[in-house]
Formats: sequence, C-alpha cells, structure tokens
Amino acid sequence: LNGLDEFGLIRHLVDRLGATSRPDVRVGVGDDAAVLAQQAGEETLVTTDAMVEGIHFNQTTMRWQDVGYKCIAVSLSDIAAMGGQARHVVLSIAVPKTQPLDTLEALYDGVRDACEAYGCAVVGGDVVSTTGPFVITSTVLGAVPTGSALLRSGAKVGDAVYVTGFVGSSEAGLRFLSGDTGGVPADDALLLERWHRRPEPQLRAGEILREVGASSCNDISDGLASELNEIAKASGVRLRIQTNRIPIAPAVKNYARSRGIDPLEFAWYGGEDYQLVGTASPLAFARALSICESQGIRITQIGRVEPGDGVVADGPTGLDVIYPRGYNHFA
Amino acid sequence: LNGLDEFGLIRHLVDRLGATSRPDVRVGVGDDAAVLAQQAGEETLVTTDAMVEGIHFNQTTMRWQDVGYKCIAVSLSDIAAMGGQARHVVLSIAVPKTQPLDTLEALYDGVRDACEAYGCAVVGGDVVSTTGPFVITSTVLGAVPTGSALLRSGAKVGDAVYVTGFVGSSEAGLRFLSGDTGGVPADDALLLERWHRRPEPQLRAGEILREVGASSCNDISDGLASELNEIAKASGVRLRIQTNRIPIAPAVKNYARSRGIDPLEFAWYGGEDYQLVGTASPLAFARALSICESQGIRITQIGRVEPGDGVVADGPTGLDVIYPRGYNHFA
Repeated sequence: LNGLDEFGLIRHLVDRLGATSRPDVRVGVGDDAAVLAQQAGEETLVTTDAMVEGIHFNQTTMRWQDVGYKCIAVSLSDIAAMGGQARHVVLSIAVPKTQPLDTLEALYDGVRDACEAYGCAVVGGDVVSTTGPFVITSTVLGAVPTGSALLRSGAKVGDAVYVTGFVGSSEAGLRFLSGDTGGVPADDALLLERWHRRPEPQLRAGEILREVGASSCNDISDGLASELNEIAKASGVRLRIQTNRIPIAPAVKNYARSRGIDPLEFAWYGGEDYQLVGTASPLAFARALSICESQGIRITQIGRVEPGDGVVADGPTGLDVIYPRGYNHFA
Repeated sequence: LNGLDEFGLIRHLVDRLGATSRPDVRVGVGDDAAVLAQQAGEETLVTTDAMVEGIHFNQTTMRWQDVGYKCIAVSLSDIAAMGGQARHVVLSIAVPKTQPLDTLEALYDGVRDACEAYGCAVVGGDVVSTTGPFVITSTVLGAVPTGSALLRSGAKVGDAVYVTGFVGSSEAGLRFLSGDTGGVPADDALLLERWHRRPEPQLRAGEILREVGASSCNDISDGLASELNEIAKASGVRLRIQTNRIPIAPAVKNYARSRGIDPLEFAWYGGEDYQLVGTASPLAFARALSICESQGIRITQIGRVEPGDGVVADGPTGLDVIYPRGYNHFA
C-alpha cells in the first residue's frame, strides 16, 4: 500500500472518486455519518451486496476496475428492480495487507465509473484489513414515489411476462473469460467479456415499468429460472414461458452452439445478467414496450401468467416444469 | 451449517430476528430492496462499519452474540454522534463454509439485542461464503431534523469540551479478556468484560446535545486523542484538556494501576468506548449537563476551546501536546 496508513489510504481513494455534485448530499465522506436530504413524496430504497475474491470473481475473469464497477452495478440493479432512482452509495472494503495500491485505485475508478453512469455518489464507507481474501460490500440508497415500488408479489392471472435485454450473456462471458475461448470471433469476444464484467443495471427500464404500472419486477442475479420462480411464489400464480421467445444474443447463441451447449441453459440458469424480469397487464406491457422502443431499450414478452404455481415452459419437447437452480453459496 | 443452503440460511437467520414492528418499514427483508417511509422535516443519516474475525475480534475476547451486538452498536454510535435517531439496518456477512450454524444464530441474537435496545430494525442484507475469516458489515440509516446534524467542524473558541460516560473502559476490558486477569475482583471483571463486548451507543446523549445546540460531536472509536484531534482539525481550533477531569471508571483505574499502567493511556489511546466527545458553548453545556443528569447520563466538561490548532493537555508534568494514536489497519 505504498506506506499509506488507514487514514491516508481512505483520503487517497476518496480523492480518486472526485467531487460529489449532488446537492442532496449535505455531508458526504468525512464525518461520522453522511447527511442526505430527502424529497417530499418519496420513499427510500436500500439494498446491500457483498463480493468476495475467489468466490464472486477472480483475477482471470475480472480486472479490479470491473470489480468496483460490478459491485455497485449489482446493488443498482436491485434499485432498478423496485422502479427506483439510485442516489447514494456507501462502500466497505476488507483489504489484505499485501494488496497492491494500484489494484485499489483501479477498484475505485470502477466505482466512479458506475456512479457517474447511473447518477449516484459515494457518501461514506469503511476500510479495514483482513487476513483473508478481499471483500467489497456496497450499500445503495435510492428513492421511489411513495407507494409505487415494484414488488415481486403483484403478478396477476392474464398478465404478460416480460424480460429486458438479453439473458444468458453473463454466464457465456464467464465461461469465455475462464479460458474456453477457442474459435470465438473478436467482436463476439468483446461482447462476452463486457456482458460479464460490466452488466448494465436497468434503472431506466425500471422507471418505465413503474410508470406504466407493471405488476411485478425482479432483477436477474440468479438466472431466469430462479427469478421467475420467486415471482410465481410471491404472487401465488404460475408463469408460463414460451422458450422460443426468450431473448438470447446472437453472440451467446453462437458461443453456446459451438460448444454443444443449449443456449437456454445459459438463459435459465446462468445469472448475473442484471436484466429485469416481471409481469404487467397486457395494456401496461404494450405501453412499456412503446416507451422502451422509443428509448432504445429492449423489452420482450416471454410468456403469461396463469392460475397455479411454479414456472412452466413451452418448448420443442412439450411443457416442462422449470425449477430454480442459481448459484448457491452453501450448497 | 446443518445442510442449510444459502436461501434456507437467510430465512433461518431472519426468522431469528423476529417480526419488525416499525410502521415505516413498507417492505423489509425479502424483495430486491427495502422500502422505507420518510418523515417530513428530516434528513437521512447513513454510516457503515465492517468487523473482521482475527482483526476486530477473536474467540477469546468476544462471544458470537457480542460480535453481532457490537457491529450494530458501532454503527449506531455514528448515528448518535450526529445527534440522530437510529432507524434501519442492513447487514452483510461473509461466512466460511465451516462456520457452525449455532455461531450464526448467536450472532443474530446479538444483532436482535442491539436493534431492540436502540429501536431500529434489520430491513435487508446479504449472505455470501468466503475462503477467509468471517466478515460482518453493518449499515445503519438514521434521521435527524433538517439542518441540525452535529458535525465535527463547529467548535468555537470559548466552548466547553465535553465527553459522555467513562473513557478507556473498552481497552482495559480488551486487555482483561485477552488473558491479563490476575487479581481482578469479580465485580470489576464483569464490568471490564461488558465495556469491551457491549458498548452502549449514546443515542440519547446525542439527541440531547443536538437539542441544546452543541457545536461539535464525535464518537470515540479510536481513542480520545484521535477524536479530539479530528475535531480540532475540522474546526480550526485548539482543544485544551484538563487531564484530571477525564472521566475514568474506578474499575479501570484499579485495573491499570495494578498493572503499573497510567489509566490515562487507556483513556487517550484505547478506543472503542463509543462515548461522545465534542464541544458546546458554556450555556449549551450547562443545559446538556442538567438534562443529562436528570436522565442518569454522565457528561463531563474536560476542557475548553482556544485559538490555535491541535490538542494540548494540562497534566501533572505541565502542558503536553496530544497526538492522535488510534488503531491503524495498515500501520
């Protein structure tokens, strides 16, 4: 750490984030707690996520600036899934004493990138040492008009099931970055890397879905199968998916097929796409589709809500029950 | 972990916290983010702290329920130092795969104890695995009337310097718990253990100090020397302390002296007392003293604010300059 002590290190890293321009930050980094102004008519959203070196990422698959970016992006995605705006971030890192300073500088550059891209600001944090692997914990505060947060529990029979963007992309990217790179065109390689390292939290799509009155929403951290099952369970309904409608990027289809893998495997079970999935009445979905299209945001109807429970998929082999199968930390 | 997977573990631990009775929690644990109602005329406070096994605690000095309690208490202390009320907590833990389930149950019992004692509620979190030591990260949200947060930067020449409770207690307790136990009376032993394991965040004192218009406040995480220097620097003043006024508990004095240690060493440099230290005009201090006394809260004037910089102490050997010397993670 180039001889920096704890306080010098914090100053050095905070300086790297640049000045905060948000007028609602009355007191930012540097006092006992941050002081944040509220807007009338809003509720506060809060979510937290931790990433551990060797579990969530390693030096083969992620550069340090990606780790900083992605930890923020993962929390921002939770704010997006509530239909909220992202506002403020606090960041805690546990750092091995042998960690090179330039890796932390890169980490904070990635944090700054994510904050700038999505309009939020770091207002506090903690830096401690550890004898184990590097751990980063981000907590993001957001806001949503009172009473309008998108929950998992509102899906209704007859609703459309939607998903934003493409799914399965991050898992394909992870496999590529882990070394299975043979025969992949250069353009596809860049996409695969970016999808895994720099997922784009769908804050704008979340706001649109809230504005049109979508009935439920979830972000895809654990794979489409897992997230759809959460909505079905929370809402007490069955979700029926048309597998041929699931949006998978051409680069992912090509990559999967060149390896003898069904691209749907990545889509159902891959996770870390940080797209949004949920339900909306046919009318609300039509409005969301129209607004999204005008703003260049991909949103696709992939099924509908039926009475019953669980998730089923109409595929080439008939109707399959889709069970959750995401990453499990203690399997 | 008794065969519990990640989702089963989260459910099990959240159940252990019991139901949340706060009406401002519109959505708590279980969706993508918590949804929290705001009160008009308030600003939001946010602070985060991490504790790492082997760095911040070990199995000799702390039981697991103390770890849970203390991590929350440390963040609550930051809210107290702003003069705020504590409201909501999000909690992230990184858990070795070999961690016994009963240690996590005890941890969450301690979290529940702290939340119940200080009127806040856990509204979200994250549970991940790690190949290294256990890490707990707590983020606490609080609230303060708009524009009234106590900062470090408001000390003015002529103000009184105050401290709540006793200082040096946690450091003495740490030494005792680390094995230096000889000749300590049983009553003192209990106090020493409690002071280290279960510090009491001074939320009520912080509110009183805000209400009387104290000019600055800081909580004592790094020792009186370090905290006073922070206030002096942030405010552009010198703090002059009468060492014989520094409040040290009889059990700590006895413990230190029986080991040939000056009790002031614990007070200046010990840290982790989580008392409040700061400044107030003589009139504001007199009012705070009167209200605190009526509520059984100890608050002591230990010096005054002068022109200049840094911290000086009038002691038996004359006027000494007091430099910061807290725990440094990367020394």
